[in-house]
Amino acid sequence: MKKTVKVLLVLATTLLLASCGKLDFGSDSGTTTSTKSGNYQTTGNNKDSNYQGVIRNGKYPVSKARGLMLQNNNQNGNTFNVRSMESGLTQIATKQFSTDKYDLEDGQLLSTATTRKWLARQKGKFSKSGDTDNALGLNPASNNKTDPTKRNPIYLQQLLEQDFMVSSGNSMNLGGIAIGLGMNSVDYYTKSQYGAQYETKISEADMVAQGKRMASEVVSRLRQMKGVGQNTPIMVGLYRQAEQDSLVGGTYKTYMVSMKGNQIGQWHGVNQQNEVLPLQDNKKGINSSVASDFNNFSAQIRGFFPTLAGVTAQAHYEDGQLAGLKVTVNTQFYGQSEINAFTQYVTTAASKYLPSGVKIEIDIVSVQGMQAFANRDTGEKNFYTHVFDSY
Amino acid sequence: MKKTVKVLLVLATTLLLASCGKLDFGSDSGTTTSTKSGNYQTTGNNKDSNYQGVIRNGKYPVSKARGLMLQNNNQNGNTFNVRSMESGLTQIATKQFSTDKYDLEDGQLLSTATTRKWLARQKGKFSKSGDTDNALGLNPASNNKTDPTKRNPIYLQQLLEQDFMVSSGNSMNLGGIAIGLGMNSVDYYTKSQYGAQYETKISEADMVAQGKRMASEVVSRLRQMKGVGQNTPIMVGLYRQAEQDSLVGGTYKTYMVSMKGNQIGQWHGVNQQNEVLPLQDNKKGINSSVASDFNNFSAQIRGFFPTLAGVTAQAHYEDGQLAGLKVTVNTQFYGQSEINAFTQYVTTAASKYLPSGVKIEIDIVSVQGMQAFANRDTGEKNFYTHVFDSY
Repeated sequence: MKKTVKVLLVLATTLLLASCGKLDFGSDSGTTTSTKSGNYQTTGNNKDSNYQGVIRNGKYPVSKARGLMLQNNNQNGNTFNVRSMESGLTQIATKQFSTDKYDLEDGQLLSTATTRKWLARQKGKFSKSGDTDNALGLNPASNNKTDPTKRNPIYLQQLLEQDFMVSSGNSMNLGGIAIGLGMNSVDYYTKSQYGAQYETKISEADMVAQGKRMASEVVSRLRQMKGVGQNTPIMVGLYRQAEQDSLVGGTYKTYMVSMKGNQIGQWHGVNQQNEVLPLQDNKKGINSSVASDFNNFSAQIRGFFPTLAGVTAQAHYEDGQLAGLKVTVNTQFYGQSEINAFTQYVTTAASKYLPSGVKIEIDIVSVQGMQAFANRDTGEKNFYTHVFDSY
Repeated sequence: MKKTVKVLLVLATTLLLASCGKLDFGSDSGTTTSTKSGNYQTTGNNKDSNYQGVIRNGKYPVSKARGLMLQNNNQNGNTFNVRSMESGLTQIATKQFSTDKYDLEDGQLLSTATTRKWLARQKGKFSKSGDTDNALGLNPASNNKTDPTKRNPIYLQQLLEQDFMVSSGNSMNLGGIAIGLGMNSVDYYTKSQYGAQYETKISEADMVAQGKRMASEVVSRLRQMKGVGQNTPIMVGLYRQAEQDSLVGGTYKTYMVSMKGNQIGQWHGVNQQNEVLPLQDNKKGINSSVASDFNNFSAQIRGFFPTLAGVTAQAHYEDGQLAGLKVTVNTQFYGQSEINAFTQYVTTAASKYLPSGVKIEIDIVSVQGMQAFANRDTGEKNFYTHVFDSY
């Protein structure tokens, strides 16, 4: 079986990690709390629940493996997975690395070359001249079978590193690492190049078992890297990717923190689910009352406006409870007062019909782009609304 | 001289003005102040300084002349003019029609056919069978000349109606009208169909003189329309369009309110200016300190991020003072934490470098669309920021 493993490598030339910036941002940066120590600064922060970003020599240090995602025959390039895997890792990281003490930096340990090796299939052994085969591959070696149920699938699809930095006098030190392993729920493959697409479905149990095996490997490899102490906490989270045609990303299933050496911490379950509303094909949703609230909201605003094209939402559940809704309203507008009126109407309808207390973002878009949006954070009562205007 | 007058008429079939909606929005609509009387409701309002929109029978009554704009050989279709002329009229209207008492409805008096006639050139007289020529044209008749300085230009390019409604028991009545006359600063024309484009420049004095003549006509014609009382206030504003390649719209120059009959009220000057930053070609800006603040801000954030493509702004001045900035930052992102960090950084830089107290909107966009935005309203100290996420 020939399998083309492609790596999406965008703008590797922009990895300006050690460049010398000439900018001096200063430490008295207005109303936010940017701080500076030596060549390090932070970006300033508007919400306590967010990490500040790290600035080195006046520049933002992008991830070494920036934009890197394993792509098998260009399949499974679902951008929802990419985004939700990243923001999900940051969210889980707050359980270990408090936003007060730690600042977030995109991963600086794993280079593009290393990440590419780890994401590929394991093959051969180390020879005297190094890893010429691909002994470091975290995915299982091919068993040369092509039957969907008999082949060894690609389990690991994406790999993400986030670094958590702590200030120490004039410098910043690595205080912790979080690694996200993006595991396939379905491995899409072809039997020949440009051939038909086949699928190997992967159960959650198999996915978790494989992920735990990989997590042990990852921890022991990271411990040998320069800058990683024996006591630097290393968190590893297992993310289950949504299927390739999904309109919402996947979720993390479990995570652990290695506090020391090659020790593997206790695995904690992450009870999160995503779904797209309205439900299709009489599908039973995660929570029928949320689905019905959304349908009432949608019916309310669809009747209002002659050219309303569609109302959809991504619903996010944590521990069985609705934790967030991202609503997208597509429509066509001919004037500013229509947009203003529609935004007011949508917000009023959202307050009335959608669940209270839950984080809700509503994007109102036309073919010209985003026209307005409304947002209510968790626990808030009122929506913040903004209509994008121009002079 | 043959001149093709085209009218942009989009979706005229959607004018569902008298349709019977089945929706009942109720009067207890959450945290906003939507009210209902008879078949009329309002959209609810989130800011006291905005008008509420009117809802009739559960539907939004779009303007009769929705999307109508005179287009001469498809030239001068600058969308900045369309948007700023509309929002500018609403802003000026607040001087006469308070947002407490009046609700805003898109124009319901001027039909598409009427608007099209008024926007065209005057031609001929009424015959027994009606206005078969175009006696109602507000633009001057052609003098059959093609020389830029000798021909009669098209002065009036756009026409906009906004209605201001007052509740009265179980119904809503027309309490006032605002008309915006969009006047050309440059009339773009061709000497033959598909021929080269020529320009007739129009001085502000000529533009205002022509606009005042048209305003008298418009008032006396509106007074004869059904539903318009002899004492219904009619505001007319003269808007000077920006040139076709401008990256910011024009501004209103003067307005008056006719309180009664064909009486023309006192004309009030509107001292507003727009400009695009950074200034090009060593142009002297409206306010050099604003331009220099913007350059410092721009330099600060351009150094930060490896793939930053551009930072521009629309600056809006009222009575010589900066009244608003709309900043657009174009860049490419590879991850959520980059966007978060960049948004924090941009907001910190804006607080430090951009003028305080002034309304500032910052849109952070990539080729995938808007990624984040920050907004500070007039008089506020802190920015509201939002990063568009997905589950």
